[in-house]
Amino acid sequence: MGTVIRDATAILMDAATGSTPVTRSLRVDGGRITRIAPEVRTEDGDTVIDGRNRLVCPGFVNAHTHSWEYLAKGRYDNLPLELWMLYSYPILGARPLPPDLVRLRSLLFAVESLKNGVTTLVDDVLETPGQDFAQLDAVFDAYETAGVRANISGHIINRPFVDTLPYVPDLLPADLLAEVRALPVPTTADYLGFSAEAFARYRDRAGGRLRYMLAPSGPQRCTDDLLAGATELADAHGAECHVHVLETKTQAVTGREFYGTTLVEHLRRIGALSPRTTLAHGIWVTDRDVEILAENRVSVSHNPLSNLKLGSGIAPWRRYHDARVTLGLGSDGCSSSDTPRLHEVIKSAALLHKVTDPDPDRWSSADEVLRAATLGGARSAQLDAEIGSLEEGKRADLLIYDLDTLAFAPWNRPDLHLVYSENGSSLRTVMIDGEVIVRDGRVTGVDESALLAELRERLPEIRRDQDDLDRRNAAFHEPFEAMYRRCAAENVGVNRWAG
Amino acid sequence: MGTVIRDATAILMDAATGSTPVTRSLRVDGGRITRIAPEVRTEDGDTVIDGRNRLVCPGFVNAHTHSWEYLAKGRYDNLPLELWMLYSYPILGARPLPPDLVRLRSLLFAVESLKNGVTTLVDDVLETPGQDFAQLDAVFDAYETAGVRANISGHIINRPFVDTLPYVPDLLPADLLAEVRALPVPTTADYLGFSAEAFARYRDRAGGRLRYMLAPSGPQRCTDDLLAGATELADAHGAECHVHVLETKTQAVTGREFYGTTLVEHLRRIGALSPRTTLAHGIWVTDRDVEILAENRVSVSHNPLSNLKLGSGIAPWRRYHDARVTLGLGSDGCSSSDTPRLHEVIKSAALLHKVTDPDPDRWSSADEVLRAATLGGARSAQLDAEIGSLEEGKRADLLIYDLDTLAFAPWNRPDLHLVYSENGSSLRTVMIDGEVIVRDGRVTGVDESALLAELRERLPEIRRDQDDLDRRNAAFHEPFEAMYRRCAAENVGVNRWAG
Repeated sequence: MGTVIRDATAILMDAATGSTPVTRSLRVDGGRITRIAPEVRTEDGDTVIDGRNRLVCPGFVNAHTHSWEYLAKGRYDNLPLELWMLYSYPILGARPLPPDLVRLRSLLFAVESLKNGVTTLVDDVLETPGQDFAQLDAVFDAYETAGVRANISGHIINRPFVDTLPYVPDLLPADLLAEVRALPVPTTADYLGFSAEAFARYRDRAGGRLRYMLAPSGPQRCTDDLLAGATELADAHGAECHVHVLETKTQAVTGREFYGTTLVEHLRRIGALSPRTTLAHGIWVTDRDVEILAENRVSVSHNPLSNLKLGSGIAPWRRYHDARVTLGLGSDGCSSSDTPRLHEVIKSAALLHKVTDPDPDRWSSADEVLRAATLGGARSAQLDAEIGSLEEGKRADLLIYDLDTLAFAPWNRPDLHLVYSENGSSLRTVMIDGEVIVRDGRVTGVDESALLAELRERLPEIRRDQDDLDRRNAAFHEPFEAMYRRCAAENVGVNRWAG
Repeated sequence: MGTVIRDATAILMDAATGSTPVTRSLRVDGGRITRIAPEVRTEDGDTVIDGRNRLVCPGFVNAHTHSWEYLAKGRYDNLPLELWMLYSYPILGARPLPPDLVRLRSLLFAVESLKNGVTTLVDDVLETPGQDFAQLDAVFDAYETAGVRANISGHIINRPFVDTLPYVPDLLPADLLAEVRALPVPTTADYLGFSAEAFARYRDRAGGRLRYMLAPSGPQRCTDDLLAGATELADAHGAECHVHVLETKTQAVTGREFYGTTLVEHLRRIGALSPRTTLAHGIWVTDRDVEILAENRVSVSHNPLSNLKLGSGIAPWRRYHDARVTLGLGSDGCSSSDTPRLHEVIKSAALLHKVTDPDPDRWSSADEVLRAATLGGARSAQLDAEIGSLEEGKRADLLIYDLDTLAFAPWNRPDLHLVYSENGSSLRTVMIDGEVIVRDGRVTGVDESALLAELRERLPEIRRDQDDLDRRNAAFHEPFEAMYRRCAAENVGVNRWAG
């Protein structure tokens, strides 16, 4: 007994039709798509879904996010990354988040993602001051319950935070400098040991739907041996290795100051680029950096909302396409983009890259952004053999939209409506591994109201801790701002700001 | 008997509290807000709304849109304005739209707007090949039914279309040139006569909720006497005069080629700038242009989604603020922004202007965009004495959001959630003139499903006409593209493109 979706408008993202809408019927059996054709026979006991006035497409892959920022959603504004990190990745005084709160946070994040068509999360989870298995288990448990597919990281910073930024040691008062440098940092062996154990612990979790991934935070935030070791371990396990690279101009200055080269060239030099590597952001890259990424078949997650919110700049979308670098689309965390809704990421990616070149032939297209939101993200997540397009043999991760809505009226081009007009409000059904996870716009396995009520109850405690952190970290604000302004004024050979 | 909203979180946009959330109770009587205080007494027969876990704010003003583009939503991509106009503002062959289709289109547009919190539309309505009262009546009728507040234009172009663009007369084949020049254009007397009649015809329509406005399309598209006459007539009626100015680099070249000066300076010279004037777009303005707009107390409608979609550029948000020019926010038409949802406009305005200056103190703020979306738009629409903020004596045009939703979780800063996290899905109630127009997310006076069904039925006819137009107007595509590329390559002293 399977499910048959009959006579739907379909965006398959397969090699033959790409994002061009076609009329198809689909059969799903045992979690996989077993047949796609103009007509598909039904069998006794099949569940039949009438696909007329419905649009079927692959589920979206959120190629870069941080579920742990969910509790800081809507909290900060007008802080560039290096100042925002002070509060969102606190340097001092963070109390470990109890696993029940990690679980609550992860469930809320998964529900909001699923309701907007995200079937796969690349979730770079960090906990402050450090991550333990009780916390990581809570994320895996939550996502198993919610039914979402995910790569879930151990995130690691193993250099003293003040030594991951240029000029800061000169600008920070000696006592603060000493205090931060005295905080313990994990060793390479600690992290690789933790990760080896995580691979064993989570192998085949939820039938393989949930996987562990490596996530050294960034080249300047990790030691070279850790970066190389993490790349090697990811390769050994066929897992994704997720690194933040050149999100800001400050980071471009960092490369020059720390290594006398770009951060991408540094990563290559130490053996930390592979086809399993995803760079998050990749904004302040040079032309040569893009070539290196292409040569090493590295993927890039593009996160336009977050890049705008933190004033990081505009990533070179067309240059990546010219070099055939695989691009995914990410929302980034809810402290910097304030929502995990991928429809907004899709629309902003389609719009933003039309003011970077007067030649309309070089603007971002709806096809390109749909590709990045599905197959590109799947490729970067090391999952493109299983998901990212609707094809016979692939996992049945798919979305069913009602076309009889205002967003899709007047049905001119369903692909263009999907990118530019729809915001998730027409989404009726989300299927993952052939299971209906969202039905009539509601996540079936989770009581959303109960989660929101629980969050309300925990809020005073969450708020108190965060207010306390804000106060303590404010001591760094001025020196970090001085560093930011110094970097902003330098010439790094590329400019990703407008105006 | 009135309505009392008790103990709500409120964003009032008044002089005392601005966009800072406060706790207030509000009383509404006879279409107006009669009391705002921490506690408000109820009387026998009052309707009481529990405001706890609710956010109340002024309804949004869509300061620039074109309802008549609704039928082209999701139809075009990657066309710069001058090419896109070929298809969306057809030069040849347009059949007049029958009034019943105008009414259907206007109702759909109003419903989608209302469901996203837009209580006032500045709707620059054009009909091709020309507008008559049967068509204009249909818009007024539709908006009276829907319950929305609106300024509704007569839009006018009174120069041959090929003579509104630089270089085109040299680039277009002689036969096409002759054909376009032979098309009749209205005279200044025609338009001013039509407008005088419209003011009389629609006076006090829907209790003053619906008003006629003047809309000469642009300085290069209208004769000087028409522009000056329209400005004068608008002043005489206290009405808005709505003009497109410097949306594109091509238009910056146009000013120099046609008048030897900027389009703003030209408008001043001919007496076509007044405090009742709203410029739509205002992207490629010089510093001096901005000063002139400030001196003449002209408003500007900023339309970031449309400006990105057509590759027009990034408007100088900070410069306008520095000069204290009133800014509103507009969606523009559905052929260039693909949705009338103002939440997307608000979010993109808040995000886009953070990558135009490295100094975070000069980035756009949530407060600024909320001000533009409410009071700024009201001021530009000549309605700020009546709407745009929640204050005693003003009209009760207001929105009630449910805060117990994922978008507002975890309730860190309701103002930031409203700008960055909410997309309209938490909106429960929309009140205009004290009447509930949207209840539980549905427009009360309109059967949305019936409208969508009617649209489906009319689609073949709509599609056939538009396909036919596309074919005929394609003859202009190449020469227009040559003109566009020539203008793009010139130096006009300002650059509003990124990269």
